[in-house]
Amino acid sequence: MSFNLLFLGDVVGKAGREAVANHLPDLLARYPIHFVVCNGENAAHGFGINEGICEQLFDWGVDVITLGNHAFDQRETLVYIERYPNLLRPATFPAGTPGRGAGLFRAKTGENVLVINAMGRLFMDAMEDPFAVIDRELDACPMGEVADFAMVDFHGEATSEKQAIGAHLDGRATLVVGTHTHVPTADHRVMPGGTAFQTDAGMCGDYDSIIGMDKVEPVQRFLSKVPQGRFSPAEGEPTLSGIAVQADPKTGLAQACAPVRLGGQLEPAIPPFWNV
Amino acid sequence: MSFNLLFLGDVVGKAGREAVANHLPDLLARYPIHFVVCNGENAAHGFGINEGICEQLFDWGVDVITLGNHAFDQRETLVYIERYPNLLRPATFPAGTPGRGAGLFRAKTGENVLVINAMGRLFMDAMEDPFAVIDRELDACPMGEVADFAMVDFHGEATSEKQAIGAHLDGRATLVVGTHTHVPTADHRVMPGGTAFQTDAGMCGDYDSIIGMDKVEPVQRFLSKVPQGRFSPAEGEPTLSGIAVQADPKTGLAQACAPVRLGGQLEPAIPPFWNV
Amino acid sequence: MSFNLLFLGDVVGKAGREAVANHLPDLLARYPIHFVVCNGENAAHGFGINEGICEQLFDWGVDVITLGNHAFDQRETLVYIERYPNLLRPATFPAGTPGRGAGLFRAKTGENVLVINAMGRLFMDAMEDPFAVIDRELDACPMGEVADFAMVDFHGEATSEKQAIGAHLDGRATLVVGTHTHVPTADHRVMPGGTAFQTDAGMCGDYDSIIGMDKVEPVQRFLSKVPQGRFSPAEGEPTLSGIAVQADPKTGLAQACAPVRLGGQLEPAIPPFWNV
Amino acid sequence: MSFNLLFLGDVVGKAGREAVANHLPDLLARYPIHFVVCNGENAAHGFGINEGICEQLFDWGVDVITLGNHAFDQRETLVYIERYPNLLRPATFPAGTPGRGAGLFRAKTGENVLVINAMGRLFMDAMEDPFAVIDRELDACPMGEVADFAMVDFHGEATSEKQAIGAHLDGRATLVVGTHTHVPTADHRVMPGGTAFQTDAGMCGDYDSIIGMDKVEPVQRFLSKVPQGRFSPAEGEPTLSGIAVQADPKTGLAQACAPVRLGGQLEPAIPPFWNV
Ligand SMILES: [Fe+2]
Ligand SMILES: [Fe+2]
Ligand SMILES: [Fe+2]
Ligand SMILES: [Fe+2]
Ligand SMILES: [Fe+2]
Ligand SMILES: [Fe+2]
Ligand SMILES: [Fe+2]
Ligand SMILES: [Fe+2]
Repeated sequence: MSFNLLFLGDVVGKAGREAVANHLPDLLARYPIHFVVCNGENAAHGFGINEGICEQLFDWGVDVITLGNHAFDQRETLVYIERYPNLLRPATFPAGTPGRGAGLFRAKTGENVLVINAMGRLFMDAMEDPFAVIDRELDACPMGEVADFAMVDFHGEATSEKQAIGAHLDGRATLVVGTHTHVPTADHRVMPGGTAFQTDAGMCGDYDSIIGMDKVEPVQRFLSKVPQGRFSPAEGEPTLSGIAVQADPKTGLAQACAPVRLGGQLEPAIPPFWNV
Repeated sequence: MSFNLLFLGDVVGKAGREAVANHLPDLLARYPIHFVVCNGENAAHGFGINEGICEQLFDWGVDVITLGNHAFDQRETLVYIERYPNLLRPATFPAGTPGRGAGLFRAKTGENVLVINAMGRLFMDAMEDPFAVIDRELDACPMGEVADFAMVDFHGEATSEKQAIGAHLDGRATLVVGTHTHVPTADHRVMPGGTAFQTDAGMCGDYDSIIGMDKVEPVQRFLSKVPQGRFSPAEGEPTLSGIAVQADPKTGLAQACAPVRLGGQLEPAIPPFWNV
Repeated sequence: MSFNLLFLGDVVGKAGREAVANHLPDLLARYPIHFVVCNGENAAHGFGINEGICEQLFDWGVDVITLGNHAFDQRETLVYIERYPNLLRPATFPAGTPGRGAGLFRAKTGENVLVINAMGRLFMDAMEDPFAVIDRELDACPMGEVADFAMVDFHGEATSEKQAIGAHLDGRATLVVGTHTHVPTADHRVMPGGTAFQTDAGMCGDYDSIIGMDKVEPVQRFLSKVPQGRFSPAEGEPTLSGIAVQADPKTGLAQACAPVRLGGQLEPAIPPFWNV
Repeated sequence: MSFNLLFLGDVVGKAGREAVANHLPDLLARYPIHFVVCNGENAAHGFGINEGICEQLFDWGVDVITLGNHAFDQRETLVYIERYPNLLRPATFPAGTPGRGAGLFRAKTGENVLVINAMGRLFMDAMEDPFAVIDRELDACPMGEVADFAMVDFHGEATSEKQAIGAHLDGRATLVVGTHTHVPTADHRVMPGGTAFQTDAGMCGDYDSIIGMDKVEPVQRFLSKVPQGRFSPAEGEPTLSGIAVQADPKTGLAQACAPVRLGGQLEPAIPPFWNV
């Protein structure tokens, strides 16, 4: 029997949390989903995440939370992250950063899933080399030996760097999926080596927005080049966005992948392979 | 009767040209498509476009070609662009640049279509303010008065800037579509004001690649930080990628929009509203 | 008799204001200085400028204040700038921005001095094309016709862009001087066409710092990639830094230029041509 | 007796090589200079360095050559660098890059000098964390224990990052000097902990140029945004630019530092402490 992974993109503010609350428990009840990872870097009013929201996401069925450049926007995260082994921050942060960037987690059905979170460097504040960092994590816990499956959340801006990470890891992970741009890409596919890939998983949030934020201030800033107010999340109709992978337990590789989009502004999508 | 616009994303090298050659004439024969715009900035081996390729694209059924940051990679384009009114370069180039950045074109069925090409400034070499430039072009030729329909190809890197342009123009254009990242986004939608929007149309080319380029050199450059060779387009199975809009001739606004994806690596998509 | 211009670099916080207060009145009493321009973009605790500080700078002998990317960090500046014709913000802000980016000012000795403030685009948030904007201002008020002298404060990050502006304007202005990097460059010279140039005038402030800011937080941010606190100006020994130009009243061109550095950490410098 | 170090900034093309040839042998004959480091990343027509030029620089009296982002523009450097222990490339290149980024060298007078070459990440293509890399090199070979003196060539764009490296290393090195902007800064000083510092050493080359390059093409590119030709070094009057440090052999720390500028466009400077 195949193993079904689900990855959900950046949860942005209240609409993003509602998207997860509205849909994830229902999906888990209805379909054979074995492991859920969710990027939570914008869950707390768009900037970082707090302990209460972590608890909520876990309650709704998330197994592991990943983060990104907004990892520590809520400064309390520097402290409580040490108590939450299932909360990862990018492994590319400098040595000594609180928390961990990768972990081996046990699914309820017993499989070991390696999850790695890393950040890109193109058009972003430079951290450690994600190619080297991810290689090191995969070498320490190779898929097919220590881990049954491996998922990489690569948080990056440039499509070239994200696709290069995908190509570089093809055959060594179940899924390499991008986050950070808050827009799902329609290029999900199983690469030649057997790794599922999508340049960006999109966000969970209100898409009648500018990357999840209320449209007024971003537009006026582009026009005037002078801030008038703060950025705050758009709070209209919530959409869930992510990617599902059907994986082969013998190899850890992907057999199929498909987008998951529910509610709100985007074209709805449910993986055909969930309907057994 | 509705007016059907088709926009095709960045044509990358030989695979991109084959994608257009293989599919566009057939689509035009089979479906009621009234006007076709195609971004050609990477058509000549990945870098710019030459006169022969322009002629080919027009022969295959493209009405207007748009460009981007690679507009003048083939230096001959600085000369022949003056002879091709249907070849646009970004309107955000400095005053005095050969060619034009917008034009009013007559569809075979008689409607006047305004096409505007502009470039973003986030994470790109800065040119003129695209918000001001596009406003000026739309003011000079307002949809519903001089133009029956208006299409904007916004060539940009950052999803925030692309969505801000969309929000800013909502209600004043038929379609605002992004190009340049070479990955189609799954966020096509008709915005509240009636303008169809997609953050990026994706590329026409080989998706088993890094943004259309053969994977070897980009990956090795990320790894070693030292160039070993040139970038050249991947030449595997070609995929066509774009967006179709069904527009209301009375207002110029969008009634529906949908992705067009044919051949190759991506999930195929044909607009449901094409099948009358 | 020659006309002596003095330009002072970015005033950073209290130490920067003290540098001006300590030295400028004395310099004006002692030497034949006819016109003083000062960049004030960091005068209010490092971020922007307020009305009271403008008044102080004028009291100490500044004729015109220029700004930069921090122009409107103090939001009140959007309002009071309209009442202060001698307070300029970069001319490269979008149309509609409060205040002006250039002005013709009358020295106490009767000469008309054109002052232009503009911002670069390399490694900075993109605004209007500074080459085109400065050309337009100089064309509207050419040196030798309407203006007796012309000074350009070019606020930019990249040395290449700053030197390109210098080369482009050589022969059309008395002085082109860079600001923004907060470090004086030792390349002051009169270019072949007769325009004085310095890539950066440096800052007025405490140089035992990181670009004028207390060293602790900037260093820890580079190390940890996580903010621990705010940036605040270093408040040690103040240094004044700027450039003086001796100009020919017949042509407006520079006869000589030399650095002015007083107090604090840097090697002291007084223009030899001031001692008549 | 004090130990005198000399550091020369980026050698740009023929004018840069002439600056060294014209002045360095003479300086070494005339003054008590004990060790010379020179950044050679632009020595070969502006782009990289070749074996012949390395030999020339060593012949003229350079003890160690450092590089920067242009390290491997001449691809042969990837090969011959392994045969030249006195040729360093930035230590921040990824593991596996040919050559070394630091070395302990013996001066003719017997002292051991640690030289470290590293690159910044702000506004540059991101490599390894220079703070961590330099710390590691200094820890492996601490000044006052293994090394008698330590020099750091920090090749970076942003003044903030360069000054932060300086502040971070204060007390642990003889000299921290910036390179890459091709403009000497006038902020040379001995920091409170005893390390000499200068944000940028400037270039050896023709200053009637744009960062060493002929002015025509850079200016026209800023104006038109379309390349018309290649960048090539300006070949006018050569200027030597660098920094001299007088160091205490007991501690390795700096007693004094001063700019060295000879020939060409800049104000000449010879360290007062050289004239015993
Ligand atoms: Fe995010
Ligand atoms: Fe992010
Ligand atoms: Fe493209
Ligand atoms: Fe492009
Ligand atoms: Fe400043
Ligand atoms: Fe600034
Ligand atoms: Fe250089
Ligand atoms: Fe460099």
